[in-house]
Amino acid sequence: MTEDSFKITVHMVSSLDGIIAKKDNSVSWFDTADNYENGVTGENPEDFLKSIDCYVMGSRTYEHAIELSKSYGWAYGDVPTIVVSHKNIKPERTNIEVFAGDLIELVNEKLKPTYKNVWLVGGAILAQQFIRLKLANEIRLTIIPIILGSGTYFLESIGQEQALHLLDVTAYKNGMVELRYEIKNSNS
Amino acid sequence: MTEDSFKITVHMVSSLDGIIAKKDNSVSWFDTADNYENGVTGENPEDFLKSIDCYVMGSRTYEHAIELSKSYGWAYGDVPTIVVSHKNIKPERTNIEVFAGDLIELVNEKLKPTYKNVWLVGGAILAQQFIRLKLANEIRLTIIPIILGSGTYFLESIGQEQALHLLDVTAYKNGMVELRYEIKNSNS
Repeated sequence: MTEDSFKITVHMVSSLDGIIAKKDNSVSWFDTADNYENGVTGENPEDFLKSIDCYVMGSRTYEHAIELSKSYGWAYGDVPTIVVSHKNIKPERTNIEVFAGDLIELVNEKLKPTYKNVWLVGGAILAQQFIRLKLANEIRLTIIPIILGSGTYFLESIGQEQALHLLDVTAYKNGMVELRYEIKNSNS
Repeated sequence: MTEDSFKITVHMVSSLDGIIAKKDNSVSWFDTADNYENGVTGENPEDFLKSIDCYVMGSRTYEHAIELSKSYGWAYGDVPTIVVSHKNIKPERTNIEVFAGDLIELVNEKLKPTYKNVWLVGGAILAQQFIRLKLANEIRLTIIPIILGSGTYFLESIGQEQALHLLDVTAYKNGMVELRYEIKNSNS
């Protein structure tokens, strides 16, 4: 795969026990109070965001992002964002589009012709569907230094083996570890 | 904590989705065919094993290790090994002892007076009990580059939050990543 080729990345932030959301949806556990001396500091967030040209998310992730935007602003900027849902959602921003069709059609007819670097940012069920159908090319998992003990698991019900290839490991000063894997034999 | 102080390490090997054992107990998924160029090669296994002066395990982990020993030899050498179980187990080696009491008693009366570097190597339920009771000081999780999709989860039913402190991250040439965490506010 070259730098210029089309790529879908599943990006998740989880606890060490693989939980991406607490039952009450609170997000304070993201703010780790940890300090890892050998870690690196984060990339410049602006450079980082610039490389992503489309976000894809499920309806509950969208609704949660809208809720959070009331306090913190909309997290995904002006980047085109596709909400995969059969619900009757009225997008609250002009760069948001709702897609109610099949995921293979989404990838082949909407994403591939227009975008290069697509990030799927949740939720767990949509991420699992992309991995199960081999539509995602990479998994980028950021592990927060905490055990949550209950909540929504990133990969709990995927029910299918998938070989991975480790691409990169980054440990940050705040104790977060980012693991980047290629999904072997993906279809897109 | 100084180098000389007593320490209990929970050591687990899991898939990216946090599974430590497949339903059929097969272990071929441990032999990753992955190649991570930036990784390091493993430590000298002999140096590594020498630092551990006691292994603790549950009965099913013990029975599985005995089963594997028929093909590959006993994995834990002559290091004293304590099997925590109420079952009537007759140890197959002289360095194996069965303990049927309370875990706090195990730590305070059997482990602390005699050992420095205790490794708890499974199973999931015993590991979770040690973490829940704050009897373990460290978690060392080795992540294999695979999604298994079903099996026994390392931390599925722990049901309790636990803050961690990242101590170390090591990526190996075979695509395995070892994460080492301190369990904050442990009791032992």
